[in-house]
Amino acid sequence: MNSLHTSIDTLFPPRISEILAMEPQEQMLTVCGWLRTHRDSGSLSFLELNDGSSLENLQILIENNTTGWSNLHKLIHTGAALEVRGSLQPSPAKGQRLELRAESIVLVGEADAASYPLQKKRHSFEFLRTITHLRSRTNALGAVARIRNILSFAIHRFFRDHGFIQVHTPIITTSDCEGAGEMFTVTTLTAPSSDNEFNYQRDFFGQHAGLTVSGQLQAEVYALSHSRVYTFGPTFRAENSNTTRHLAEFWMLEPEMAFCDLQGNMQVAEALLRFLINTVLEEGAADLALFDRHIEAGLLRKLATLCSQKFQHLSYSEAIDALEKSGRAFEYPVHWGMDLQAEHERFLCEELVQGPLFVTNYPATIKPFYMRLDEGEKTVAAMDLLVPGIGELIGGSQREERLDILQARMQGAGLDPAKYDWYLDLRRYGSVPHAGFGLGFERLVQFCTGLANIRETIPFPRSPGQAPC
Amino acid sequence: MNSLHTSIDTLFPPRISEILAMEPQEQMLTVCGWLRTHRDSGSLSFLELNDGSSLENLQILIENNTTGWSNLHKLIHTGAALEVRGSLQPSPAKGQRLELRAESIVLVGEADAASYPLQKKRHSFEFLRTITHLRSRTNALGAVARIRNILSFAIHRFFRDHGFIQVHTPIITTSDCEGAGEMFTVTTLTAPSSDNEFNYQRDFFGQHAGLTVSGQLQAEVYALSHSRVYTFGPTFRAENSNTTRHLAEFWMLEPEMAFCDLQGNMQVAEALLRFLINTVLEEGAADLALFDRHIEAGLLRKLATLCSQKFQHLSYSEAIDALEKSGRAFEYPVHWGMDLQAEHERFLCEELVQGPLFVTNYPATIKPFYMRLDEGEKTVAAMDLLVPGIGELIGGSQREERLDILQARMQGAGLDPAKYDWYLDLRRYGSVPHAGFGLGFERLVQFCTGLANIRETIPFPRSPGQAPC
Repeated sequence: MNSLHTSIDTLFPPRISEILAMEPQEQMLTVCGWLRTHRDSGSLSFLELNDGSSLENLQILIENNTTGWSNLHKLIHTGAALEVRGSLQPSPAKGQRLELRAESIVLVGEADAASYPLQKKRHSFEFLRTITHLRSRTNALGAVARIRNILSFAIHRFFRDHGFIQVHTPIITTSDCEGAGEMFTVTTLTAPSSDNEFNYQRDFFGQHAGLTVSGQLQAEVYALSHSRVYTFGPTFRAENSNTTRHLAEFWMLEPEMAFCDLQGNMQVAEALLRFLINTVLEEGAADLALFDRHIEAGLLRKLATLCSQKFQHLSYSEAIDALEKSGRAFEYPVHWGMDLQAEHERFLCEELVQGPLFVTNYPATIKPFYMRLDEGEKTVAAMDLLVPGIGELIGGSQREERLDILQARMQGAGLDPAKYDWYLDLRRYGSVPHAGFGLGFERLVQFCTGLANIRETIPFPRSPGQAPC
Repeated sequence: MNSLHTSIDTLFPPRISEILAMEPQEQMLTVCGWLRTHRDSGSLSFLELNDGSSLENLQILIENNTTGWSNLHKLIHTGAALEVRGSLQPSPAKGQRLELRAESIVLVGEADAASYPLQKKRHSFEFLRTITHLRSRTNALGAVARIRNILSFAIHRFFRDHGFIQVHTPIITTSDCEGAGEMFTVTTLTAPSSDNEFNYQRDFFGQHAGLTVSGQLQAEVYALSHSRVYTFGPTFRAENSNTTRHLAEFWMLEPEMAFCDLQGNMQVAEALLRFLINTVLEEGAADLALFDRHIEAGLLRKLATLCSQKFQHLSYSEAIDALEKSGRAFEYPVHWGMDLQAEHERFLCEELVQGPLFVTNYPATIKPFYMRLDEGEKTVAAMDLLVPGIGELIGGSQREERLDILQARMQGAGLDPAKYDWYLDLRRYGSVPHAGFGLGFERLVQFCTGLANIRETIPFPRSPGQAPC
């Protein structure tokens, strides 16, 4: 049996992150990567090699009289792909523990010094956005990719460890969860049928279909069969707004839990966020330090504080009270029934409680139909988690599980209950109190990196007029 | 610090899968779930409760003279949500080790016996497809959800353990990877601008955009910065074909590896598949046994065999030879240069080698532009993995890393190199041999469950005319 187990660990050369953790050794190593910089010093050349496995480069040393090197030397520029063979030795110089003394270097792929856009100097994020296909080769964007990977796996681990199963909810849908009318249309029609009108009955799905704005309604289906589920995937907004906080395509995490109320919902959200931040602090320390140094001073302290801080709770009514008593002149005047604006959220979170804050029980009139109506019928069992610097990171609610109230709320929202009959069935048959929330993954990456523009947090950002690659 | 760690494990009652693994105990337990069936026997009622955590139900026993029970009894039907409190005792009856002796039962949500579509009898998959919002409550579809969850997490674990990072490649794209013209259009246009023509310059992205058919090209970007990456997410085909093997929306896993050739690519594919099958055999045994019993006799043996079998290799030319020498009368006549049809794949895989088979080095004319041209220039470094009963489960290749050859292949395929200039940049700057493959996740679920129709393998299937929920 053993001989049949294909080992892939010997298939690839060791990654630089692995090499940097090794002890010095005489045994020859082969390492592959891309040249970041190089310089000559006396009879030696120094090369900085990176393979994306860590922020840190591996320093390569080669004697200039090594056979073949003097010719190769002239061809090697920043961005070139190299295969290096050498022995790992303690580095006498400052800045690194180890260096690889090269016995041979192979130039695998050239990079022309005159035209390669990523030279040693620092580039603005604006410029890097024009070369999304190359920017992952920079320190900052390379680090974002590793942070995303850590957070993404941590999400799966958290939910697996707590008995949730992942459900792949659909991207193409005929249900508009938020009823906000900001859906992209998905179509195979290439021309209208008559009078500039589209006949979606002739379209691929036989009706109008769009890109999902949330997997929640479908996640509820599985919460009512499998108790605790989550969906984690791309979601979409056809909002024509070019801001540093919005993307047309972004990843959203949405857990959904049967036999769970608003309190339980907030406990899960808090435990999740603590776990994710703890994990990224442990596994992404070197990358986070880069962002702390160059992007957001105090980032590491901010993250560590969040893990040790108690999350505060305020009802919406208490929040309005506090805003009214603050004596602040807000741009948007404060009154009960309004939606909280960024300036209000910042005051509450960053000044009033100075830490993560759950605001709960918002007016029913400003929240979607599926949120559970509180006693008194003025508010719903909603919660938003505000965090410093970001504002709303998580939004959720207990869901309305009572059929008659849900039907009335749908009608009030102008939705056609017939179209959501399948959703109502979940209240007709074995309905239970249940709750869930949505966490915008790129907002989380922004929180963990301090990046000002959300377009740096996702590999290939999509926004109005922008979908290169 | 400890007191701040919100524990969510005490938040929820134990799941039935956990209870079924406990020892009998006097301490009272609370359990929540949905009623599958119930029956009376003498002075006792027996209820079968399921919460989606396992195929197995928890048997609940209640004495008919328990206070309040006689009234409740009449209201409780299949599908009802219940909260039960009782003590866990050894079961004297056959069929289960434990049972819960109920002290109290709360009816959380009713299910009307006359109208609830899921009564005790078995339902056809065709019927269940008309109620995708309820079908996850059945044994078979509930098991599919757990199998998907096991496989999905195993994918993340495999790649993490081998130094890959996950990249979230975009859904909305302006690049058509396969050049097959089977993309859905994504638009916010509601009317043509003139003469029934769409002016996509006026559209959201300022040009025509569609739903991705593969994340490969974008994964290559990250393979050339981070060495080993994978993307796992939804992909789309606007193929107007209603078969048991195709979906308009499906999940695809696509690893991409720098410094890797076709041989390495196949080794990773083989190691991955063995790991996934081993994991599902270990963690999904009870669910797989259901499919072995009712859907595909011999399923468990088939899966165990795959893990212990050597994967065979044939070049395309050798495969054509074997087909010609087989003496079989195929519907599609065999000749070098043809694409292999299902009948040919079945013969090669199920009869000739009787196990998993890599077919490699296909004619360049029938494969996409990005596959690496072999010496002789007639074939490309492609590989398809065929498995019994399914046919092609994995398809991949070494990628063309040589700029001039790639440009020529693009032109040959009728693509505009200017549009793929970003992709060509990957060959201009630090190009390296690299390779990757795609694994259709729903095909894998089909292979693991034996389900005949792929629409049972995904929670909310999308196909021509079909996008409910």
